[in-house]
Amino acid sequence: MKTANHSNRGMGLENDINLTNSYYLEKDIAVIYKKPTPIKVTKVSYDCIGNKRVKDAFYEKPSTTDYNGLYKGKYIDFEAKEIKNSNIFPIINIHKHQIEHLSRINKHGGIAFIIVRFCNNNTTYLLEINKLISFIDNNKRKSIPIEYFEDCGYIIKESYIPRLNYIKIIDNIISKENLWKNLKGNSKSL
Amino acid sequence: MKTANHSNRGMGLENDINLTNSYYLEKDIAVIYKKPTPIKVTKVSYDCIGNKRVKDAFYEKPSTTDYNGLYKGKYIDFEAKEIKNSNIFPIINIHKHQIEHLSRINKHGGIAFIIVRFCNNNTTYLLEINKLISFIDNNKRKSIPIEYFEDCGYIIKESYIPRLNYIKIIDNIISKENLWKNLKGNSKSL
Repeated sequence: MKTANHSNRGMGLENDINLTNSYYLEKDIAVIYKKPTPIKVTKVSYDCIGNKRVKDAFYEKPSTTDYNGLYKGKYIDFEAKEIKNSNIFPIINIHKHQIEHLSRINKHGGIAFIIVRFCNNNTTYLLEINKLISFIDNNKRKSIPIEYFEDCGYIIKESYIPRLNYIKIIDNIISKENLWKNLKGNSKSL
Repeated sequence: MKTANHSNRGMGLENDINLTNSYYLEKDIAVIYKKPTPIKVTKVSYDCIGNKRVKDAFYEKPSTTDYNGLYKGKYIDFEAKEIKNSNIFPIINIHKHQIEHLSRINKHGGIAFIIVRFCNNNTTYLLEINKLISFIDNNKRKSIPIEYFEDCGYIIKESYIPRLNYIKIIDNIISKENLWKNLKGNSKSL
């Protein structure tokens, strides 16, 4: 069984997340999908049995993120990025409008974050959007060192099945949120 | 002002929903997007400045629905369909896996529904997924008459801005859900 795990290691973060999401769906744990890549079609043709086929198109800039879905009644939204040969995450990797989108999701009560894998270290982190924005607001640097992910993010452990069990981290985030709500509620009632 | 409204009338349900979603985004009311159409790319080429362009591709069957997003902390998911010349809605218009998806969303605490416009009557309805499934389970008919939408759904009134204010209906649904939760809570504490 372990051989299969290792032999698939090179298949990348996107593949790991897709396999994990399929597992969540199959086990009825969460409903999270990768959105299709936005493509602007400019020319189509029809084959002999009338099926439409795209003959010219271009890739559009994504206006939102790659993944969204639902877990325990919570709206989940995230973008995933892989860093090949370095221990820093260039902020330019996430478009400005994607950061704005994630920030909006956070404001409206969803759970918004990025998942970043540093391939050099073979380590994958989940960083909440408020932590990403806090770094951008308080630093002049154009890239985030891995140490910031270590200090302010969560490590997502790799395993065989599910490949990248990020729902565990979301459970943590939900518990923290509930704790805060209760504390706020109690301080109001004092 | 009214002229603009009427002159745009023929532009279709999808356009109305997109305009409404843009309005919700702009006014910071909700974050709801149309997902890109899933396209499987089989051939690409690069132009002289290195931009990738799609040269052959085909449309894939959507595995989920057209729209999803977030409103007041709630996950929203729906499919929209237009019926041109009839007062019945053929169930085949919604794929089986889309019904399963909406049902899953409902089970995991999201708000799932279909929006159907009957162009003959110029009336647009929102029908919750449990009402759609209930019809399918209790009827041998392969299509749903407009009267069922009238009795079990909600009319979404058209206006100038926003074009199709379906969030009002979602407010109703959330209120009903909260009422149920409270009733259940009270009956437990008795």
